[in-house]
Amino acid sequence: MPAPRTIVPDKALRTLVSDIFVAAGTSREHADTIADVLVWANLRGVDSHGVSRIPRYLELFDKGEANPRPQIAVDELRSAVAVIDADSAPGPVALSMAMHQAVSMARSSGIAWVAVRGTVHTGAIGYYTECAAQYGMAGLGIVAGVPNMAYTGSTGAGVATSPLSVAVPAGRHPIVLLDMATAVIALGRIAQHRSSGRPLPEGAALTKDGRPTTDPAEAAVPLPMGGAKGAGMSLVFELLTSGLTANPIVSPFHSGSPEGRRHRQNAALLAVDISAFLPVDQFRGIVDETVDAIKRLPANDPSAEILVPGERGTRTFADRLTGGIPLPVPMVNKLCDQAAALGVAIPDGVRPA
Amino acid sequence: MPAPRTIVPDKALRTLVSDIFVAAGTSREHADTIADVLVWANLRGVDSHGVSRIPRYLELFDKGEANPRPQIAVDELRSAVAVIDADSAPGPVALSMAMHQAVSMARSSGIAWVAVRGTVHTGAIGYYTECAAQYGMAGLGIVAGVPNMAYTGSTGAGVATSPLSVAVPAGRHPIVLLDMATAVIALGRIAQHRSSGRPLPEGAALTKDGRPTTDPAEAAVPLPMGGAKGAGMSLVFELLTSGLTANPIVSPFHSGSPEGRRHRQNAALLAVDISAFLPVDQFRGIVDETVDAIKRLPANDPSAEILVPGERGTRTFADRLTGGIPLPVPMVNKLCDQAAALGVAIPDGVRPA
Repeated sequence: MPAPRTIVPDKALRTLVSDIFVAAGTSREHADTIADVLVWANLRGVDSHGVSRIPRYLELFDKGEANPRPQIAVDELRSAVAVIDADSAPGPVALSMAMHQAVSMARSSGIAWVAVRGTVHTGAIGYYTECAAQYGMAGLGIVAGVPNMAYTGSTGAGVATSPLSVAVPAGRHPIVLLDMATAVIALGRIAQHRSSGRPLPEGAALTKDGRPTTDPAEAAVPLPMGGAKGAGMSLVFELLTSGLTANPIVSPFHSGSPEGRRHRQNAALLAVDISAFLPVDQFRGIVDETVDAIKRLPANDPSAEILVPGERGTRTFADRLTGGIPLPVPMVNKLCDQAAALGVAIPDGVRPA
Repeated sequence: MPAPRTIVPDKALRTLVSDIFVAAGTSREHADTIADVLVWANLRGVDSHGVSRIPRYLELFDKGEANPRPQIAVDELRSAVAVIDADSAPGPVALSMAMHQAVSMARSSGIAWVAVRGTVHTGAIGYYTECAAQYGMAGLGIVAGVPNMAYTGSTGAGVATSPLSVAVPAGRHPIVLLDMATAVIALGRIAQHRSSGRPLPEGAALTKDGRPTTDPAEAAVPLPMGGAKGAGMSLVFELLTSGLTANPIVSPFHSGSPEGRRHRQNAALLAVDISAFLPVDQFRGIVDETVDAIKRLPANDPSAEILVPGERGTRTFADRLTGGIPLPVPMVNKLCDQAAALGVAIPDGVRPA
């Protein structure tokens, strides 16, 4: 049975999150960025990547695996590539900086690839690619992390559920925003099935012993989407991010050394300056017409709407911006307890009655 | 029952293909490029993208949809982006040129994105990304084409089975080469099931009426891999290729105009200069160690080997380079008939006994 929910306004939530991070040692600027990225995920309905992750961030700070006061170094290697050494900064800080760097460099070179070395928990990477789209650019992003997904033909965690995101600006329509893991279903969704007792779809997970299962209680490791395709995408994302930043994750993880299992992530963010190719308004028009064509396709289920990537999230965002964000009461209570332990005041509207 | 096969040496096949294209009106240089790309696919075992496509090329020339004497224009828009107007050149000609352009620009800017407008049939795009890897760069490629795959929630052809390819150089190991369509299984594989009568996997195809089917005889349209994920990838590939080249395919296809159904493709190829980030040998070492770690993963089936992307194709390539390419006899006969009709001599070793 799902936990009871409480409705929290996004502004109060953002204030609480920012105050928690300042109390945990970050600068206010970094705390605001982290709050923006986490609350954005909740607003879009991607609750698995929202404020529920805060206890994990605090744990990473405590263990010294994340750095609340990072010395982030930006190195412009060539006119269209840069690397950001994140110094174990929280992902929202490092990746926001990386996408701004990419957008800035793409203005002159047409495209920029910014590699991020050694961050932790990037959050929902659609936030950063959407940011590029808000500047009238196309944004692309990939991330690699510590293995938590089976590699095709193998048992146990072989590679990570590393995501891909692409965002492009539209005109009449919202930004088209693809943000997908390379697993059949996310770890967070498996946990949701576990608490509701609903069986998993076929081919979504393996047990601890490597047997396919639809029982969420038994499911230990998600399977890659499309079999070898999802596994292959995850593997090449590792090589394109961890390889180019000389900071491998997959091979040390499997080496057996404890250091190899330390949480860390690498990423690559790209911005493509659409105006280098054609007037941005013309591009927006093409996106609008394409979205229209897709939405007019004959539906298999006449009562169901055909959706484009990001559409559901955009609607949830609008709903939650006005109506507030529904959050599980136990999670909000835990957040408030952690805030209290850090001496942070709970803003009005957060604590459930 | 599959057709009987004949073994053709790659050199004789390449000579025949090049001679056919010259007779069909292309320059020798372009004919050689097309022969390289098609025979490369056969050598790697991707027979669906090999010389079996020649009748289709000749048909496209006849209908004026492909241009044997294209005026290809390369426009360097900024230091890291270019667009190649293919003038309906065969894909192998336009995309080989595009990847060479990308590699050349990436040498100074670190990365380059080369858009290709208005080509036909790109062939197996792993050929072009592998080309970048042979220069010690990472190669990435995406293509958009005329819809032939269902969009999630809809019936009939909504988007294309648009592929993604990524190639990176290794050291001891072969190039890691991912080359995948966004469909569960390729159209060519459905045709293979049809001729052998083997049922399709669940969730791979719809009938003409939009019902899911495992009967290859009924299967009319492939489904996207991972449901909304594959469909979303295909859609954003359309926007990133057809959008940036101002040459939309999906929306005119659904507009009902006959022109909208004309065969054409757009593409984007990226080269990333690894040496801008780290010494290429260090990168190759990371790739080697990562491949080693994957291949040492515990296998679900102890008799089966864990494979990395491209590994099977590399082995088939080596086998077929020495042992020749097995091709269906009726297909070779048809090719020889077309060659004869064009006045092309059949090289020794091609015509089945």
